Amino acid sequence: MQVHPGEPARNAETMLRWMKEYRDSADLLVFPEMCIPGYLLGDMWERPAFLRECEYWATRIVEETKSGPAVVFGTVVTDWNVKGEDGRARKFNAWIAASKGAAMEHPTLHRPYGIKTLLPNYREFEDVRHFCDTRKLSLELQKPWSDFVEPLNWNLTGENFRVGIVLCEDAWEDDYAQKPMEVLAGKNPDFTLNLSSSPFTRGKNDKRHRVFGAKARLLGAPLFYVNCTGIQNNAKTLYTFDGRSSVYDCDGVVLNEMPPYAEEVLIVDVPVGKAGRASAQMKFPPPFSIGEVHHAIRYGAEKFLQSINCRKVVVGISGGIDSAVAAAVYREFLKPEELLLVNMPSRFNSETTKNLARTLAQNLGCLYLELPIEESLSVSQKQFQNLQASSLDGKVKTNLSLEGVVFENVQARDRGARLLAAIAAAFGGVFSCNTNKAEMTIGYGTLYGDIAGFLAVLGDLWKEDVYALGRHLNTDVYEREVIPEGIFTVVPSAELSSNQSVDEGKGDPLHYPYHDRLFFAFVQRWNRATPEDLLEWYLEGSLANNLRLPESVDTNLLFPTAQHFIADLERWWNLYNGIAVAKRVQAPPILAVSSRAFGFDHREFLGRPSYTQRYLELKEKALDDGK
Amino acid sequence: MQVHPGEPARNAETMLRWMKEYRDSADLLVFPEMCIPGYLLGDMWERPAFLRECEYWATRIVEETKSGPAVVFGTVVTDWNVKGEDGRARKFNAWIAASKGAAMEHPTLHRPYGIKTLLPNYREFEDVRHFCDTRKLSLELQKPWSDFVEPLNWNLTGENFRVGIVLCEDAWEDDYAQKPMEVLAGKNPDFTLNLSSSPFTRGKNDKRHRVFGAKARLLGAPLFYVNCTGIQNNAKTLYTFDGRSSVYDCDGVVLNEMPPYAEEVLIVDVPVGKAGRASAQMKFPPPFSIGEVHHAIRYGAEKFLQSINCRKVVVGISGGIDSAVAAAVYREFLKPEELLLVNMPSRFNSETTKNLARTLAQNLGCLYLELPIEESLSVSQKQFQNLQASSLDGKVKTNLSLEGVVFENVQARDRGARLLAAIAAAFGGVFSCNTNKAEMTIGYGTLYGDIAGFLAVLGDLWKEDVYALGRHLNTDVYEREVIPEGIFTVVPSAELSSNQSVDEGKGDPLHYPYHDRLFFAFVQRWNRATPEDLLEWYLEGSLANNLRLPESVDTNLLFPTAQHFIADLERWWNLYNGIAVAKRVQAPPILAVSSRAFGFDHREFLGRPSYTQRYLELKEKALDDGK
Repeated sequence: MQVHPGEPARNAETMLRWMKEYRDSADLLVFPEMCIPGYLLGDMWERPAFLRECEYWATRIVEETKSGPAVVFGTVVTDWNVKGEDGRARKFNAWIAASKGAAMEHPTLHRPYGIKTLLPNYREFEDVRHFCDTRKLSLELQKPWSDFVEPLNWNLTGENFRVGIVLCEDAWEDDYAQKPMEVLAGKNPDFTLNLSSSPFTRGKNDKRHRVFGAKARLLGAPLFYVNCTGIQNNAKTLYTFDGRSSVYDCDGVVLNEMPPYAEEVLIVDVPVGKAGRASAQMKFPPPFSIGEVHHAIRYGAEKFLQSINCRKVVVGISGGIDSAVAAAVYREFLKPEELLLVNMPSRFNSETTKNLARTLAQNLGCLYLELPIEESLSVSQKQFQNLQASSLDGKVKTNLSLEGVVFENVQARDRGARLLAAIAAAFGGVFSCNTNKAEMTIGYGTLYGDIAGFLAVLGDLWKEDVYALGRHLNTDVYEREVIPEGIFTVVPSAELSSNQSVDEGKGDPLHYPYHDRLFFAFVQRWNRATPEDLLEWYLEGSLANNLRLPESVDTNLLFPTAQHFIADLERWWNLYNGIAVAKRVQAPPILAVSSRAFGFDHREFLGRPSYTQRYLELKEKALDDGK
Repeated sequence: MQVHPGEPARNAETMLRWMKEYRDSADLLVFPEMCIPGYLLGDMWERPAFLRECEYWATRIVEETKSGPAVVFGTVVTDWNVKGEDGRARKFNAWIAASKGAAMEHPTLHRPYGIKTLLPNYREFEDVRHFCDTRKLSLELQKPWSDFVEPLNWNLTGENFRVGIVLCEDAWEDDYAQKPMEVLAGKNPDFTLNLSSSPFTRGKNDKRHRVFGAKARLLGAPLFYVNCTGIQNNAKTLYTFDGRSSVYDCDGVVLNEMPPYAEEVLIVDVPVGKAGRASAQMKFPPPFSIGEVHHAIRYGAEKFLQSINCRKVVVGISGGIDSAVAAAVYREFLKPEELLLVNMPSRFNSETTKNLARTLAQNLGCLYLELPIEESLSVSQKQFQNLQASSLDGKVKTNLSLEGVVFENVQARDRGARLLAAIAAAFGGVFSCNTNKAEMTIGYGTLYGDIAGFLAVLGDLWKEDVYALGRHLNTDVYEREVIPEGIFTVVPSAELSSNQSVDEGKGDPLHYPYHDRLFFAFVQRWNRATPEDLLEWYLEGSLANNLRLPESVDTNLLFPTAQHFIADLERWWNLYNGIAVAKRVQAPPILAVSSRAFGFDHREFLGRPSYTQRYLELKEKALDDGK
């Protein structure tokens, strides 16, 4: 089911409707984790009225099992009489199993619900902030935590079953000292339900099949993975939930998998124990495919617009790849009159890119405007001409002028904050932020200028992913050249000065096939790389291997000497840890598709970029050797 | 000591310098929690090179005890051979006690360090994301966690002492099922050290004296609270650390407290056990005083500027209270030539406020500019005149015009993103965001306009606090009327249309003495209030009491009927949970002074504002009764 975060009544309505609809055709309906409250709710858990509302709907659903099928669902359960570690009423990330109008008592916890053992507290997850788990209970009750992982003896269909029920992370136990699935396997469940609220991450589905397949084999019995669809967010970072609820047989083979992002009910005849082996392995799309990413982005953007009750989007298009891809994505689900592309040239924009922008608008068939910014720029320039500020007593004075990069940023802000924001408001819509992850990493963009808008729809894609997504849109989605070929081949450039002329082949100070991967190592690598690691790899000749550089990148050509390598490394490292943090704080929300999106999943602080002693030694040696 | 987050070399340098300096005058030097790495570091803990750097400096400091005094300090300790729950090397928030060139072995843990038992995971704290605690170890090692809370038998000064050592939260045990101080008290330490990294919160010091006083009495022996100074941030929310290291005697009386925000060494003769009772109670400023808040804001703003290597600030001044207070705060530590005030009138700005702005600039004696925005506004108006967008095939068309609130926001963005951003860049500085907490709560402000700048220096102050701070600045700081009286008395107004004319007494749609407290209940109340609670209080006549309304607020006058009350409540609730979330995502960092600042300490999501069933029932009844 699609879970709407913070809307218990709406979520319960879906559940009650399905309970009626499947009254005769199902014995047991299984819903996802936290399907009444939603999952990523910030600190909404601190509102007692909200917790009571969730209780109200859970009670209604349990009552409905008088006449409907049995249910298992995930929700928040509040123990009003006990304090949690934040000093408020204690809450559990819990499951409730109910039939015949009553919730089943947990056989060892002796409560009308079961609770999660492993509370994820990494990436965007922060269960520990709000919920108490069996491990903490175990210290308090002085019983082993494993006592609380116990199959339910449940009469369904007139027959008794031992039903294992766990919540999401409980099956992702491999990095924990406590292993609920191992414990459960020792207690011989006939089948096991995993209720999840698990956001899409590129490549995760493939991994999930491996992990859950192994768990099903461990259990020696079928495992049901029940995940929600929809979108949820932590304000700064927006996640899509791809559903793909699956059934694994006792050999870990996938018997069924629901299509990604589809809200529907799948009726399965439960293959109990060793029965019902899969006849053939299901086929899945290749992991990490751009098609999978495209699906998440399209779904996320559309659902996010719906969630803010908006149907109209403005995209500033420059003739470059990022804005073209963003526009093409929005055009997939917006009508021609709901999408407005705006090209805002200054004296620095080439005919090349202006024409490409126009061709794109033509291909997409949506609304289009060309609004030059020269006149407003000259008002600003005039206002700053010979501009002097002084104190009213005349004792101190200073001159102010718009030159160089200062004037470049004035152009970007004139486009973003003056034009696009006003156009979006006049249009009754929002405007798109087209920045990509490489730019976000180093703050290559102007705050209130191109780093502005309602959603950074491509903000979790490296530059090379943006190109790949553009190719995919032309080839597999539109099946024609909506994004003109010239947009793929023109040099990426901000066109904010005569030093960035695309017709002279000048543009961004980045060689994306290299820098995408350097920045990946800063941001997204499992053990984050720092200048120390990178310089070490460079010096020992393992850089290409460690960064997984494509063969086309010749680092000897990019960096003739160690000095060049170091200068480049420090330039981007200082930006990534410095001004780019300040820009990210005020950047639009990001649609997450990777295992580490900027925002809530990439916690950071604004401080001084620092270098380790070991780095300083390596650097000194490398520079000495180069002399 | 002032701890610089993410700068181990710089922090260790302070420690090594003091170890040399106090070689002869101290037997034991105690440093704060996490004084080598810093504490609020986002996910920097995931960089192995950084963890190795911290190890390097910890080792250097331990070695230094060969010739220096004994030390106790807090730092990160990495167990490279064991996985943490995030799958990376396991890390501890640890203390190290060292003398004679070696770290003391923990008597029960049998490691050269001790670890924190209680990991705070509320507000801005997220220790659990990164660190393992004694409670998790206890499950794994199958020993009670309390075994790992044990005084050190330590020969200092030739004599043996039982030294209790705990970290910060360990003493704030009251809401936890596990109580390390109680355990420690049962093991008779001669004295106990609490190493902290505890940010300033209004009123916290007073509470800390109560809590730590009680713990000292429980221990029956002196308790040393050692806290750091400096600033640290979570990118979005900036915290000041006020130090105020204190010594409590065995009766819980404060023997010594260091001045707030002072980095210095205090040498204390340790009053062991029941010895050395305080002769007289120390005097403290009244809790929750505006002076305390002023100190935090001034310190935070100055240190933050230093941390980003900036000395120049631009403040857009409107003639209203927020910008005046911000300007007066910056003028406290910036020279006249480092502070530039800019008034940017349009046709809607009154002579009243323009004159007040000018007088303020005169009183502060800093740089001043008057830059009207009429000319640039008319360029925008002209550009939108009869503006029509259409598709290139002419099939769809739309008209766009700048009217009403759309044009109001154009003015605000012209000031913020066009003028102030360019002026700040030309000046070589940054510009101030002057928004207050009431405005932030409901998004009363324009993104890229007045919600823009390098720091929302007043972003954690309610409107009435801003007035109080203004009074304090005149009376106690400047001791003259730097903020003109007229700024206190003029009606608060955005002056963006003729409906907001201050000379006609028109202004913000808020009655701050009431709405400050309503918004406080949404945002900052321990158990967050929702419309259900508020309507219930209103109907049962307990609203004034529950919101702690000042007597001057007559809710019967404000809301002649329940319908008025409900309309007002829903208006702000919808904004708080709706568009204001989107604005906060892109708002500048906030300087935190309260127990719940927007940003990292006020987690939220962008969804639909929701109302509980109980609220809907109460509302229906109230509206029916009103008929």
